[in-house]
Amino acid sequence: MPVEYSMTRRVTFAETDVAGVMHFSNYYRWMEEVEHAFFRSRGMSVIQDVDGATISWPRVMTSCEYFGPLRFEDEIDLAMTITDLTDKSITYEVLFSKAGQRLARGRTKAVCCELLPGGAFRSVAIPPSVRAKLSE
Amino acid sequence: MPVEYSMTRRVTFAETDVAGVMHFSNYYRWMEEVEHAFFRSRGMSVIQDVDGATISWPRVMTSCEYFGPLRFEDEIDLAMTITDLTDKSITYEVLFSKAGQRLARGRTKAVCCELLPGGAFRSVAIPPSVRAKLSE
Amino acid sequence: MPVEYSMTRRVTFAETDVAGVMHFSNYYRWMEEVEHAFFRSRGMSVIQDVDGATISWPRVMTSCEYFGPLRFEDEIDLAMTITDLTDKSITYEVLFSKAGQRLARGRTKAVCCELLPGGAFRSVAIPPSVRAKLSE
Amino acid sequence: MPVEYSMTRRVTFAETDVAGVMHFSNYYRWMEEVEHAFFRSRGMSVIQDVDGATISWPRVMTSCEYFGPLRFEDEIDLAMTITDLTDKSITYEVLFSKAGQRLARGRTKAVCCELLPGGAFRSVAIPPSVRAKLSE
Repeated sequence: MPVEYSMTRRVTFAETDVAGVMHFSNYYRWMEEVEHAFFRSRGMSVIQDVDGATISWPRVMTSCEYFGPLRFEDEIDLAMTITDLTDKSITYEVLFSKAGQRLARGRTKAVCCELLPGGAFRSVAIPPSVRAKLSE
Repeated sequence: MPVEYSMTRRVTFAETDVAGVMHFSNYYRWMEEVEHAFFRSRGMSVIQDVDGATISWPRVMTSCEYFGPLRFEDEIDLAMTITDLTDKSITYEVLFSKAGQRLARGRTKAVCCELLPGGAFRSVAIPPSVRAKLSE
Repeated sequence: MPVEYSMTRRVTFAETDVAGVMHFSNYYRWMEEVEHAFFRSRGMSVIQDVDGATISWPRVMTSCEYFGPLRFEDEIDLAMTITDLTDKSITYEVLFSKAGQRLARGRTKAVCCELLPGGAFRSVAIPPSVRAKLSE
Repeated sequence: MPVEYSMTRRVTFAETDVAGVMHFSNYYRWMEEVEHAFFRSRGMSVIQDVDGATISWPRVMTSCEYFGPLRFEDEIDLAMTITDLTDKSITYEVLFSKAGQRLARGRTKAVCCELLPGGAFRSVAIPPSVRAKLSE
């Protein structure tokens, strides 16, 4: 059964632009917010210590299709699904809907990385304890 | 011959995140900045009056692949190419490089729209005067 | 009795910076979010039609004092108080606290304006119906 | 003679809001950008290693007065002045002007801090080598 998570989020004033709608870049921040809320719902954080290593999830690919505008103070339903889980990466899809009408669909592929001293990232296998919580 | 435009941009402090790199959503703002600079270089604006109508370019699809991190104060070369120009839409590709090393590749598909009173968007054919300047 | 409103907000990843804390500019977005939630709680919006005019609230002064850092995923209490209400303006104070420890104090002075066709702002007296709801 | 620095910056689309003007929070990002450009002009960075310590400049107070709106693609002159330099802090003022018309005035007080392992900040005296470059 696919892993799913959902939340509701309202468009803020600072997220709109002079065209009167939510700026297209902000959808990506929302996609990240639902992912991080999902991690918290599983007792984890998207940046956390696991067995002495700092594990984080840099993106290797993100995309979004826009079907209709989001406007100031719109209340939007976000539905996240894990569509792929490999040894080293997670791919999510997030649907944006307002009152049942689909307004956007985003995708994110994030890879499990160890954050090294000095700031470099090293791709690592998803630790078993993390994988277990993701798949619960 | 493809239409191309390039500029250089430095990573600001506010664009970084706690992982020490530019937040992945900000690449989309940069993709838009190079597009808008290209419009200005052709004597246009991305939101402008054409024959009495307000013409703008909402996105229908955006995506980005990330090959390596951008860090605070990095100076990044952005190279934009129009990869597709239809009756009603433009598709751009933007390459992000640092000292010749490719760090990301973004894509945007924007549709030509009339911005109607009240804030609705209506897809229209790209006006001939705009098309001429885009293809120069 | 002073008009007060409060809400809780969590620091998102995109709001942090390379120094590991919430970027100082984002406090201002939070101050606006609590103000707008307050307007909604009174059955209003910060940009709304009143007697045929579009009424909005541009800022003439904002400030913030920072007492300690906010970090990723911190859950922060925001307590807003209207500290001054004149014929034409509202001044708010917003306190940021974490588990009872005060971390920042912001102030905003916003003036009641009519948003004119073409985009200009004209300062106007706060309409009586708006004032009544603000003071409830 | 006061230490001064200036630059020009154009309002981007993502910085505007549904009221048709630059969102008030973005002025703070611009104030930081001119400060950081000033540091670079003196051969420094706002986050740098000095004698083995990581020195950064968290804000303790910021403020802005707004005299008129900034709009999409406006080209704005930013003029920064150091108005106070103590043992441990710098206070800046930044004027925002368009074609000679003053549109905003911001102020920032930043304190010199050592960024400790684990992410805490400790207030320290401005290192002599930094002070010399600031006062040049």
